[in-house]
Amino acid sequence: MGSLAHNAPIVFTFHALRFTHEVYPMKENDPLISELANIVGSEHVITDSTSLSVYECDGATVFKALPDVVVFPTTPQEISAIVKLANKHNVPFVARGAGTGLSGGMLTVNGGIIIALNRMNRILEIDIANQQAVVEPGVVNLWLTQAVQDDGYYYAPDPSSQQACSIGGNIAENSGGPHTLKYGVTSNHVLGLEVVLTDGEIVEFGGAVEETPGYDIRGVMIGSEGTFGIVTKATVRLLRKPEGYQTLLGIFETIDDASNVVSSIIAKGIIPAALEMMDHFVIKAVEEAFHWGFPLDAGAVLIVELDGIKAGMQSQAEQITEIFNENNCRETRYAKDEEDRQQIWKSRKSAFGSFGRLAPNYITQDGVVPRTQLPKVLRRIAEISEKYDIPIANVFHAGDGNIHPIVLFDERDADQCERVEAVNMEILRACAEAGGTITGEHGIGVEKMDYMPLIFNPQDLAVMATVKDIFNPSGLCNPGKIFPTAESYAKLGL
Amino acid sequence: MGSLAHNAPIVFTFHALRFTHEVYPMKENDPLISELANIVGSEHVITDSTSLSVYECDGATVFKALPDVVVFPTTPQEISAIVKLANKHNVPFVARGAGTGLSGGMLTVNGGIIIALNRMNRILEIDIANQQAVVEPGVVNLWLTQAVQDDGYYYAPDPSSQQACSIGGNIAENSGGPHTLKYGVTSNHVLGLEVVLTDGEIVEFGGAVEETPGYDIRGVMIGSEGTFGIVTKATVRLLRKPEGYQTLLGIFETIDDASNVVSSIIAKGIIPAALEMMDHFVIKAVEEAFHWGFPLDAGAVLIVELDGIKAGMQSQAEQITEIFNENNCRETRYAKDEEDRQQIWKSRKSAFGSFGRLAPNYITQDGVVPRTQLPKVLRRIAEISEKYDIPIANVFHAGDGNIHPIVLFDERDADQCERVEAVNMEILRACAEAGGTITGEHGIGVEKMDYMPLIFNPQDLAVMATVKDIFNPSGLCNPGKIFPTAESYAKLGL
Repeated sequence: MGSLAHNAPIVFTFHALRFTHEVYPMKENDPLISELANIVGSEHVITDSTSLSVYECDGATVFKALPDVVVFPTTPQEISAIVKLANKHNVPFVARGAGTGLSGGMLTVNGGIIIALNRMNRILEIDIANQQAVVEPGVVNLWLTQAVQDDGYYYAPDPSSQQACSIGGNIAENSGGPHTLKYGVTSNHVLGLEVVLTDGEIVEFGGAVEETPGYDIRGVMIGSEGTFGIVTKATVRLLRKPEGYQTLLGIFETIDDASNVVSSIIAKGIIPAALEMMDHFVIKAVEEAFHWGFPLDAGAVLIVELDGIKAGMQSQAEQITEIFNENNCRETRYAKDEEDRQQIWKSRKSAFGSFGRLAPNYITQDGVVPRTQLPKVLRRIAEISEKYDIPIANVFHAGDGNIHPIVLFDERDADQCERVEAVNMEILRACAEAGGTITGEHGIGVEKMDYMPLIFNPQDLAVMATVKDIFNPSGLCNPGKIFPTAESYAKLGL
Repeated sequence: MGSLAHNAPIVFTFHALRFTHEVYPMKENDPLISELANIVGSEHVITDSTSLSVYECDGATVFKALPDVVVFPTTPQEISAIVKLANKHNVPFVARGAGTGLSGGMLTVNGGIIIALNRMNRILEIDIANQQAVVEPGVVNLWLTQAVQDDGYYYAPDPSSQQACSIGGNIAENSGGPHTLKYGVTSNHVLGLEVVLTDGEIVEFGGAVEETPGYDIRGVMIGSEGTFGIVTKATVRLLRKPEGYQTLLGIFETIDDASNVVSSIIAKGIIPAALEMMDHFVIKAVEEAFHWGFPLDAGAVLIVELDGIKAGMQSQAEQITEIFNENNCRETRYAKDEEDRQQIWKSRKSAFGSFGRLAPNYITQDGVVPRTQLPKVLRRIAEISEKYDIPIANVFHAGDGNIHPIVLFDERDADQCERVEAVNMEILRACAEAGGTITGEHGIGVEKMDYMPLIFNPQDLAVMATVKDIFNPSGLCNPGKIFPTAESYAKLGL
């Protein structure tokens, strides 16, 4: 039993929004470390605290937990050996991709080993005729599109972080993106998986064809937030690039007007490839940072993208323009060419980069509501912002009702931090009460554990826990995530 | 313990293609029966053998197993009580919808209770604004479309049996249909489920919005072939009816030509709503039965349907016509109007009705292969047909490589039955060897159990068995399905 063994009660302090755990003092010559080095080579094992600190947080940056050791394997067999070793020493282990997650899903909140998949970054196979590719988990999302675009193909799931995030991480969180509205989430694009189970066994689920018999273990593995095992290979779908795009940007006086446009477009039977909204707060931040030419007094900007065959697109764009105009659109811009289109998307995807101008810290909330409830819930969020005196910006996937309230604060201000926690809870409660849910694409991780009782009753959670116990009987694979604690119920007043 | 208790070794004889199980002699006043009557009313309990025989087979008709009793509940609470009773008496129970399944998935192969869901046939809610409906499991697939079509909506999954099959059954088997190519299978259209678990507990998974947090239990429940519990309510997506359709029918000299068309269409980046093929055998049967005007000497007929906005469709239809012509198309027909279109689809969907003219019995095989392997696998099937002197017709979802070889035979001829078994195995082996799989949409049920080792190794199957043990620890919920036996391995020579 090495000094890393975490059999002792979990030391995991929640302080404001900053998670910290007491790292067990590492012995100089801990046997686990040398055994890990035997598997991957000592140059691929990190134990010094400066280097470890790189791995203490994810893209949200507000949750922090230091790992005891980070290893960089390159094969499923190495991962299998690491997992068996972790089991032997009773040490938690967590897989990590690019670290762009937003719910703290890959944080070692109980300490232990980070299995970093960055070296497993090869595209193993591209099969254009059958529109598939086989990738390792560390392949960056955008790389795959870059590898096949000359053949006229692309990989559809496009999180805003797609230049950095890894496909393995996308699978863990079942990530979406602006084009989820038309093309679905990661689960819709992953045909098969190779997985190292939590006992070190290497198995495969799904395969090279769309439908596979037997229970859909592939499906339940996707979105299990790294708690069911470690994906070491994925067979994913490639889509043919649309013949053309038509991208419109509408500037509106109010969020309500823009929300009504969203409902009207869908009601007309038009399914845009993307339907994104930014509120006045985001417009201002983005404008001040990047000078796209948005009017600073606008209430909302809506980006609508159509894709597919060129022929019918113009008439759809005209219908959308009409809907814009019926809802007091101040100005409509059309992307004239691909460069223009890229500019519009850059304005959307760079939004997050501009929030640093607004506050030292922010939390990107991630709720989902039925589309028809958008205006009501957005009004409620404005009330919550006012009530707690915490600014909230909104930039989100309006088409599928997936809102992203950006809660702005300064983590050095303890009082603000407390109000931010109250704000988070009220926002998610509002989503749940509107018939929606508490996360669309960021996952539960550590961020949303406390809010799970808002949408699941104890029976539902018990079923999930039972399934988790099957895949992860020791609980060593990514512990301390997803499930609410007694404290969660207390916080919610349940 | 009633006389129905099946603790004794399973008496389950496999004779040629006819499954029979020895029904335990029912006592006149079995306590289970009166307890069931207490739950649903005695008029909703069937025990006489003539009435029971209606429930001894499914749509495939070749697999037969008599239940001991059939009950017709109307609420989740009644089903919960029935399930608890079955557990108390240690009697197997199986849910049954319309009985149109093709893999024997709802057969009581170990005897026991059929929980017939035909009375739970209400559409509980239609929410056009959010494009959703809530239905009971016994709702017939087509009814839902009929209920919303005046609003311009429809329910997308369309098995050939959609006039009869129930949505609950579709969920159990994760059914597809001709339009799966573009719109996906049932799983893509079910947002939430209410389920009576195998211990009688009533739980909910998923919900009214697209993305739900936590493990995707909804997903693993769909396609679990009735072995994880009984769905009592489903929230499903409604799609806006496309603005228009363009349906083409091409007549080809050879299957190879038609297969090449399939690959070429997809390679062009066109995703038709449906892409269906019939071979010369099917053309002949359909023509003789219904006189659609197909030339009896044609090698293959291909039906291609485009849907969406009208404007661009003509140019796509022209591209497809060009591809048709490049591949020796003898004749192309275009649906002039909706009536014409319905005629074309009737010719496709009525194909199964015409096979009775070809042989007293048939088994619809259901394999999947990568699209590019279609010509090779279809040639292999022709060889198999010749080798065993068993006629095989082909009508199938060519676009997604989901083949349906129709194996024709006479069940009264024991020698033919044996050859049919060999034919089935060789076809599925060919699919597996081509990188495909052994069922696309019909499920494993009892039909494909023996072939599971062709695509899953013992480790993969062990994971599935473990998951099954969680949802179905007593094994009483739909036993004797999906998993191969020692005999299966022997049959496969493994």
